[in-house]
Amino acid sequence: MDHVVEHLQSKRDDNLEQLFQLLKIPSVSADPAFKDQVLACAEKVRQQLTNAGLDGVRLLPSHGNPAVYAEKIIDSNRPTLLVYGHYDVQPADPLELWDSEPFEPVIRDEKIYARGAADDKGQFYMHVAAVASMIACDTLPCNVKFLIEGEEEVGSVHLGDIVEANRELLAADTILVSDTSMVANDVPSITTGVRGLSYLEVTVTGPNRDLHSGMYGGAVVNPINALCQMIATLHDDHGRVAVPGFYDDVVALDESERAGYAKVPFSEEVYSASLGVNSLAGEEGYTALERVGGRPTLDVNGIWGGYMGEGAKTVIASKAHAKISMRLVPNQNSQVISDAFKTHFESLAIAGTTVDVIYHHGGEPGLMPLDSDAYQAASQAYEQTFKKTPLPLRSGGSIPLVHMFKQKLGLDTIMMGFGLDSDAIHSPNESYGVFNFHRGAETIAWFHHFFANTK
Amino acid sequence: MDHVVEHLQSKRDDNLEQLFQLLKIPSVSADPAFKDQVLACAEKVRQQLTNAGLDGVRLLPSHGNPAVYAEKIIDSNRPTLLVYGHYDVQPADPLELWDSEPFEPVIRDEKIYARGAADDKGQFYMHVAAVASMIACDTLPCNVKFLIEGEEEVGSVHLGDIVEANRELLAADTILVSDTSMVANDVPSITTGVRGLSYLEVTVTGPNRDLHSGMYGGAVVNPINALCQMIATLHDDHGRVAVPGFYDDVVALDESERAGYAKVPFSEEVYSASLGVNSLAGEEGYTALERVGGRPTLDVNGIWGGYMGEGAKTVIASKAHAKISMRLVPNQNSQVISDAFKTHFESLAIAGTTVDVIYHHGGEPGLMPLDSDAYQAASQAYEQTFKKTPLPLRSGGSIPLVHMFKQKLGLDTIMMGFGLDSDAIHSPNESYGVFNFHRGAETIAWFHHFFANTK
Repeated sequence: MDHVVEHLQSKRDDNLEQLFQLLKIPSVSADPAFKDQVLACAEKVRQQLTNAGLDGVRLLPSHGNPAVYAEKIIDSNRPTLLVYGHYDVQPADPLELWDSEPFEPVIRDEKIYARGAADDKGQFYMHVAAVASMIACDTLPCNVKFLIEGEEEVGSVHLGDIVEANRELLAADTILVSDTSMVANDVPSITTGVRGLSYLEVTVTGPNRDLHSGMYGGAVVNPINALCQMIATLHDDHGRVAVPGFYDDVVALDESERAGYAKVPFSEEVYSASLGVNSLAGEEGYTALERVGGRPTLDVNGIWGGYMGEGAKTVIASKAHAKISMRLVPNQNSQVISDAFKTHFESLAIAGTTVDVIYHHGGEPGLMPLDSDAYQAASQAYEQTFKKTPLPLRSGGSIPLVHMFKQKLGLDTIMMGFGLDSDAIHSPNESYGVFNFHRGAETIAWFHHFFANTK
Repeated sequence: MDHVVEHLQSKRDDNLEQLFQLLKIPSVSADPAFKDQVLACAEKVRQQLTNAGLDGVRLLPSHGNPAVYAEKIIDSNRPTLLVYGHYDVQPADPLELWDSEPFEPVIRDEKIYARGAADDKGQFYMHVAAVASMIACDTLPCNVKFLIEGEEEVGSVHLGDIVEANRELLAADTILVSDTSMVANDVPSITTGVRGLSYLEVTVTGPNRDLHSGMYGGAVVNPINALCQMIATLHDDHGRVAVPGFYDDVVALDESERAGYAKVPFSEEVYSASLGVNSLAGEEGYTALERVGGRPTLDVNGIWGGYMGEGAKTVIASKAHAKISMRLVPNQNSQVISDAFKTHFESLAIAGTTVDVIYHHGGEPGLMPLDSDAYQAASQAYEQTFKKTPLPLRSGGSIPLVHMFKQKLGLDTIMMGFGLDSDAIHSPNESYGVFNFHRGAETIAWFHHFFANTK
């Protein structure tokens, strides 16, 4: 392993350069205007995996963006790791809030600033770097396969099809993903669970046209006021989601998990201050960390209707809209929850309005057992490089494919993420630490080493 | 009067042609991009008043758009009428909902379709037509002055200054305005009151940046959810506005007014059907007409925050915004109500968020006494042309200058509007009836006749 570690260190600048090349390609999957760039990025990943020394590098087509596949098979008796990542990124808007161009990566204060720096290019490239060094040193201990898709930010809608069509090709012993965060650079943690997602869009319609609020104000139900009333009832006075049946299938956090959360050096004051809020709030009876990692939640992601421009316009809008999503925990089911929400929200309709609810992509929650070989190997790898036992913590985010991989390939996913909350993924000025990029690549190499020894 | 009526009839096509020329100019005061068009429209009005035979036609400058002034003084012993109107119009958006171009007037089903057809070009031009015919027949019975401004749709912010600077020039016995509607073409009505307006814009701020709703959902207060909760409390369960002190200065509708409303041939079924709603709602204890004309109300005119584009984005927005306005009745005061709203809304702030409230333009309510000479003359004029006594009804809309003219010139305003609800002012496909345009011009001429006899 000394050679590998040394090789990785000698390749630091090269690896950063390769990452920068990836980051310069605006592979925004949510916006059709960027389709060519998305495909160009897939091609770039293909080249990089080839240059890393992998075999069988090719694009796996789908009805959407292709996934990039590569492998290095040493010995069928060795364990096989399947590395998943995504080369597509979130939209960069609002552009005016970025301090530098989102697709012109720069290093400031030892952080790489660019859309996709942490989510997910900086994180999946660590795996490419680690494997490239192990291949160069001729010490790759496990068979390794790569599956880097291009639609994670739009729900990985075709990934299930790609997996179905390539089951044998993708057979492995565990899946590796780096797309999550740890507590701090000196408090390593491994993500042991991800939340699920239900995402819906609602429209409340009142009059059949926009109305003058003088001539009609007081006579008709105002769809915006109605929508606000309906949304206001979605939580009770204790911060609990008020959709009937919402908590039916929730598996409570057990005492050991709650003890784990209590060990995290988390300060509500520091957290609040970093977010610029004077207090936090949520479901009563749970700490902020427990609420994010271990409890289901509901948020309005967007709301609009009526006049939104400069100045004043005295209108009663015909329609009001909102995008509403819920994060789920085991064993909630995304379709069951979406259906429950739709039924409930439609029942809240106020006389004089009609309500429409449509579904957007969702995903199931996932959980990794701590006694698994993969978790044990990961824990040892972090101890090797960070000199500390990593904390096992559930993440608040959703990676629906964790559930999909379990269903379709029978595999658990070990989530070794090296990001930080301050990376501000999905926000302007996303970044990824240079320290995290290099330390993560090293830790991944150690994971291969320890996982090989478990078989 | 027979000559005048005959002359008006002979000028029908000419008058429509002149109106069309006005309508073709997109004099949108709310949007700086249309400034040149606004000024071109003022020039057009100036030309038209000159061609009508008026004297002293000129622009009265201000720090905003100019007003157009003209006069015909016959005899200082005769009463003087001051005609107010506005040549600016509402924005046309949403453009995609218009069946024909908003600034290419066309006649369909005997209605003139264009932005400004009813509000206010079609209506003020009736006065120009009536006066032009009376001048041509050399029978103008009263002195007449015109004050046609260019900022009514943005709150007439400079009109007070223009009036202050030209008090003597504008001295008169009453003010005439045609910018309101009547019940139906066979149910004439005169607007005896207008509502006031308080218009504010609120912003609820939570975290100092947009957040990923997975990583933070459940930990922080969501500004959109918070805004909805606050707005939901602005009405109680009986449809009453829940701002403390809101109703303190309201003068209740008296029995004769309520009896007048009951006489209006209004059908809630027909009204609801025309608006495409299955029921109406508002303050308990009042009919729809009473709520619009005689009671104060609150409406959210616009709301926005978070992600509003195609598809799904899992964000907790940093900010949520709303434009909220209240229509007022005598004797509510716009500044008092705006202050009360601001204080109350700020007090609703939920811990973890901050609230900002800014003011937009407002206006005071107004009431015309039924025993005034102007009202009596108007009532007789409608009886002459419609063969029916017009109903005296308060309007739901706001014309803040009614109060301003009372304050600065000591004059009441007689609101002889010939529009209909179906004109859809402020909405796409605004129209004004050809019948209404011609009948209105005739009625106005009769008003001059009857008003002259009151002195």
